[in-house]
Amino acid sequence: MLKINFQRLKNDIQSLSHIGQKADHGIYRMAFTQGDLEARDWLKEQIKEARLDYYLDGAANLHARLQWDDKVPSVMTGSHIDTVPGAGHLDGALGVLAGLEALRVLKEQNIKLQRPVELVSFSDEEGYYGGMLGSQAMSGQLSPADIYQAKNSQDELLTDKMADIGLDAENVLNAERKKGSIHSFIELHIEQGPVLDHSDSSIGIVEAITGLFRWQCSFIGTANHSGTTPMDMRQDAFQGLTEFSSSLNRILEEHGSAHSVATIGRVELHPGAPNVVPGQADFTLEIRDTDDTILDQLREALRRTASSIARRRHLMFDFIESSTIHPVTSNPAIVQSIKDNAKALDYKYQSMHSGAAHDTQMIATIAPAAMIFIPSKDGRSHSPHEWTAWEDIERGANTLLNTLYQLAS
Amino acid sequence: MLKINFQRLKNDIQSLSHIGQKADHGIYRMAFTQGDLEARDWLKEQIKEARLDYYLDGAANLHARLQWDDKVPSVMTGSHIDTVPGAGHLDGALGVLAGLEALRVLKEQNIKLQRPVELVSFSDEEGYYGGMLGSQAMSGQLSPADIYQAKNSQDELLTDKMADIGLDAENVLNAERKKGSIHSFIELHIEQGPVLDHSDSSIGIVEAITGLFRWQCSFIGTANHSGTTPMDMRQDAFQGLTEFSSSLNRILEEHGSAHSVATIGRVELHPGAPNVVPGQADFTLEIRDTDDTILDQLREALRRTASSIARRRHLMFDFIESSTIHPVTSNPAIVQSIKDNAKALDYKYQSMHSGAAHDTQMIATIAPAAMIFIPSKDGRSHSPHEWTAWEDIERGANTLLNTLYQLAS
Repeated sequence: MLKINFQRLKNDIQSLSHIGQKADHGIYRMAFTQGDLEARDWLKEQIKEARLDYYLDGAANLHARLQWDDKVPSVMTGSHIDTVPGAGHLDGALGVLAGLEALRVLKEQNIKLQRPVELVSFSDEEGYYGGMLGSQAMSGQLSPADIYQAKNSQDELLTDKMADIGLDAENVLNAERKKGSIHSFIELHIEQGPVLDHSDSSIGIVEAITGLFRWQCSFIGTANHSGTTPMDMRQDAFQGLTEFSSSLNRILEEHGSAHSVATIGRVELHPGAPNVVPGQADFTLEIRDTDDTILDQLREALRRTASSIARRRHLMFDFIESSTIHPVTSNPAIVQSIKDNAKALDYKYQSMHSGAAHDTQMIATIAPAAMIFIPSKDGRSHSPHEWTAWEDIERGANTLLNTLYQLAS
Repeated sequence: MLKINFQRLKNDIQSLSHIGQKADHGIYRMAFTQGDLEARDWLKEQIKEARLDYYLDGAANLHARLQWDDKVPSVMTGSHIDTVPGAGHLDGALGVLAGLEALRVLKEQNIKLQRPVELVSFSDEEGYYGGMLGSQAMSGQLSPADIYQAKNSQDELLTDKMADIGLDAENVLNAERKKGSIHSFIELHIEQGPVLDHSDSSIGIVEAITGLFRWQCSFIGTANHSGTTPMDMRQDAFQGLTEFSSSLNRILEEHGSAHSVATIGRVELHPGAPNVVPGQADFTLEIRDTDDTILDQLREALRRTASSIARRRHLMFDFIESSTIHPVTSNPAIVQSIKDNAKALDYKYQSMHSGAAHDTQMIATIAPAAMIFIPSKDGRSHSPHEWTAWEDIERGANTLLNTLYQLAS
């Protein structure tokens, strides 16, 4: 089995973690901000130092390429080096740096591969201008309007920001890769959830990435004086929400899978005074699962339960689906290759799904794809407290390296 | 039985309803604003026209007095003519105008009463400067600091506003009446709740006014990524609140009385995003009952239930009691007198409690007191849509008149 140079990877992770770092407040490398630009320069430098081919596509995705041949579909790995504000050092960066290290080791083998191996650092995964810009562009999921309307939270246009650094937003759509031009895609990432950390596995093999739907919902009743309205004469919108929220676990058990999750993350009551029975309860409901059929069953069960609660309590129930993302299934051959390599390396692994969205979800629409997870302490991410043991990082990188090697051979 | 002059009362109600009226938006007579001052002038005029003794106390409470003798405890009735912004025509005004009409009829009887009869129109019941200024002053519940710190929502000081109209706020505390100087107190008021409107009674005899406590509560868990945190690894603060809210009816049934009500009127989740499991749920809880012992039992049961939910779900539960008002029991002799008179007048009546606070709650601390309610359509109040049938107004006023007569005889 091949092994990465652990000290070299560790040095890279530490070097990159200092770029955009604000003392004690985490890392700030939002897409096309100063931190991201410095990190891009640094990464370009590492690629050139490793004597890999450097390539920048129209969506400002950075590529490192080994034994490139544009007539032969490439084995691709990648993730992102942009971050949310106040991020940790591994979300995204791990996949890019482990991929870089894998390409260096493969180059050092000095043997002819069947297929080119390609590393991509995708632009704006974290959504400073909307999210997954680079991987959406590569998978042909953007329209010109998406590009020209994209703004950050300061209302600055993506097109202006790209122009400031000498890039032409008109080229973003040119980053599209044809179906068939990517033989396989693998992303290594920290889990961003607690499953692996609570298990004894170092490697998670992602068999599916969850889809989701989000509803903006309301129960509507009648606002009344809290002192003068007896309990049995109320049309209390929050009591409707309470009953609905209490039924979520039952609905998941009856209509969902082991992967289904339901979240009510925001609630607003109207008029919102301690001495007024709430006449309206607005709330968000988000459901995730790895199977579109199950998502449909949950939609139907939730609608039925909410309606029957509303009917019985003399309330109205109203909702719009504000967001829909379809689930993605990993490619079985790549999954098998990851398993075989983790087993051969004698690492504890387990099959799992990803509840978070990743660039892989986009690339999977044009190429066979899968993901490798490693544990993150308590499932932390998007936080300076993000932490993963160095041994697990090494195991994840070795699994990635050997799988890429097998797929490219 | 004595009878009020219905047409005279109806004219008064209609005249007063035009003062401070904004077309289609209801009545604006907040304490010491233009509308309130015009209404005070108008009322003073009616008192003088009726040849009753006019008296203004230190708290700017307007009095009308019949057969006044400051050595003999008076039979008092009263309510308020100030309003909330956008009010209806009866909340407060009914009690003052029916009381005025009762004094006029008693005067017209031209007989010597055992006790003086006194009408009071209390200042700022609705709380433009804090609430129940006049009745709190009369019952000795204010300190100089309360007066000097009182401000309206425009940050204008009560002391300045009183000075503007030639009143000295230093005199407010002089409005205090000694215990024993009031033989009995009765307030006629619309119900502000739906109980009478949903019954066939025209008269509600208030045997108790509810007390209440308000808690500002929090369940505290852990905010987590909604996609990557399985249901059984969550410490979802809103699910804690959901379970607690679901248990309110059971707690009222097990530990409360038929009068107990519980209201969660405001909820805020943190961080409050659709894709984050809520780490903290802040909410208000208000409990009302007519019995302090029951309020204590409910406190204890609520605390126990919230704590056990928190323990089981690995959350923290935290609360402070932000507000406490003790319940008040009506005087049995006055209640009996109201009953006897309603019966003699052949009006349908029922015993009930008041879930809303009234000036009576203050006066009851220094004198035997009770209230008479009449129905309000759908329990509306604090709204231009407030409405009560004229026959019920007449019945309420006749019941008040005869009860005052009996108590003063």
